[in-house]
Amino acid sequence: MQICRTIQEIRTFVAKRRTGGQTVGLVPTMGYFHQGHLSLMQEAKKSCQSVVVSLFVNPLQFGPKEDFAQYPRDFDRDCAMAEAVGVDAIFVPSDREMYPEGFCTHVEVTGITGKLCGQSRPGHFRGVTTVVSKLFNIVTPDKAFFGQKDAQQAMVIQRMAADLNMGLEIIILPTVREEDGLAMSSRNVYLDQTQRQNATVLYRSLCTFRDAIDHGERNTESLRRLITDMIATTPGADIDYVEILSVPNLEPLVLLQGKVIAALAVRFGKTRLIDNIIVEV
Amino acid sequence: MQICRTIQEIRTFVAKRRTGGQTVGLVPTMGYFHQGHLSLMQEAKKSCQSVVVSLFVNPLQFGPKEDFAQYPRDFDRDCAMAEAVGVDAIFVPSDREMYPEGFCTHVEVTGITGKLCGQSRPGHFRGVTTVVSKLFNIVTPDKAFFGQKDAQQAMVIQRMAADLNMGLEIIILPTVREEDGLAMSSRNVYLDQTQRQNATVLYRSLCTFRDAIDHGERNTESLRRLITDMIATTPGADIDYVEILSVPNLEPLVLLQGKVIAALAVRFGKTRLIDNIIVEV
Repeated sequence: MQICRTIQEIRTFVAKRRTGGQTVGLVPTMGYFHQGHLSLMQEAKKSCQSVVVSLFVNPLQFGPKEDFAQYPRDFDRDCAMAEAVGVDAIFVPSDREMYPEGFCTHVEVTGITGKLCGQSRPGHFRGVTTVVSKLFNIVTPDKAFFGQKDAQQAMVIQRMAADLNMGLEIIILPTVREEDGLAMSSRNVYLDQTQRQNATVLYRSLCTFRDAIDHGERNTESLRRLITDMIATTPGADIDYVEILSVPNLEPLVLLQGKVIAALAVRFGKTRLIDNIIVEV
Repeated sequence: MQICRTIQEIRTFVAKRRTGGQTVGLVPTMGYFHQGHLSLMQEAKKSCQSVVVSLFVNPLQFGPKEDFAQYPRDFDRDCAMAEAVGVDAIFVPSDREMYPEGFCTHVEVTGITGKLCGQSRPGHFRGVTTVVSKLFNIVTPDKAFFGQKDAQQAMVIQRMAADLNMGLEIIILPTVREEDGLAMSSRNVYLDQTQRQNATVLYRSLCTFRDAIDHGERNTESLRRLITDMIATTPGADIDYVEILSVPNLEPLVLLQGKVIAALAVRFGKTRLIDNIIVEV
């Protein structure tokens, strides 16, 4: 597996593979890999001849009071894990390589970025779409792979790629969960043992939501209350948002119909976790 | 010359040329060609094996009170002119093709877009960078060609292409002028005979600026007054701005040094004309 630290290096790597006629898949990540990341890499390996993983904790998508400095990092472990699943190159640029002196261009999706995490984390998605645009331009992949766990991010990136005619395929893969249902996240490492235990309520509440729909419930507010009641009665759980919206436009619905998402963000101590479920009503 | 009206058609055209190993040059335009446009196409022909011209009067870069509806259009004449200089394909999409229902992504350069035309025309450069990003993604050119007449636009696009790692070369070519010095512009057709005559003051004032620097003048305010006095005393000339700034960062300077631009926008009746000169002090 080749380790590329500069834009020039990864461009050269990709150009060589392209000359050989290979297709290229990109898995953009912020590192500290878990099974969720690995499932993206494995899927990329299946459908592309060369797989590039980018590992960049993107300062642009963190707010001033967020966990950019504390975000967990373990480059050696990440490299070993990526290599084990057959990744061909890892692109690990410095902040300066990505955002040189004088950098002043941003890509922004409006509308669907104003809700859910976009409301709680102003500027977050602008940081995401800007760095993802750069990564797409640098690596020029045929396909890029993202996790369903960051559902809004996935929709925002699909919107951006379509609107700007980026000419690549965006593949969204299912959330990978721990045995007890907690969505895998690099941030789970922040949780103490009690918080970790209590955090299982998130997925349980989403399953209850799905089950209630299966049993015929269509009232959005009742379903929302079902989720919030379960979470609010869990010790240490501090709700940021619980929303039920249409997919992919994230519009509010009084009565559920079509494809809908229940999405939530909940704090346990200082750790903010997100999860979601998409249901076809 | 192939006429492509859909994104799919032009992508197919470019893919075929690429399969043949050809380099591709793009000349983005709003049509109503003059010698300035043709000089860009001719230069593109010299350095690229296939030349694509896009012709799209981009609604996104016009303000609500601007001349989008009146902007001059003559598709048949444009086609004949492009074909005569050897253009290989012309991409002429509809508004709906470029901005389908639900479109909500923009590319924005900050800083240098807040001055000159960016100040007079809020949102203008956001419209330019968004459409140019789309055109770059659709045509995937090796080189794209722009005129120095729109100096700020050229700098903004260079900034965007560098910041977002667009991986193509941006070529800026000299302003083409009428015999009497007036910068060629599709908007010159709006001028009546008197306005057309009076508009020659623009380039004359820029030449006076350059000559004063040649004679040792370095005081920005004196030089600015030299230009504004010439224009202000011309019948029918209504100054929007006259600015002298550093290149490429468009910073104000008390004493001139290095590469500087004198840029101006002046209205004759309803017609707003721009011009500029870049001088190495």
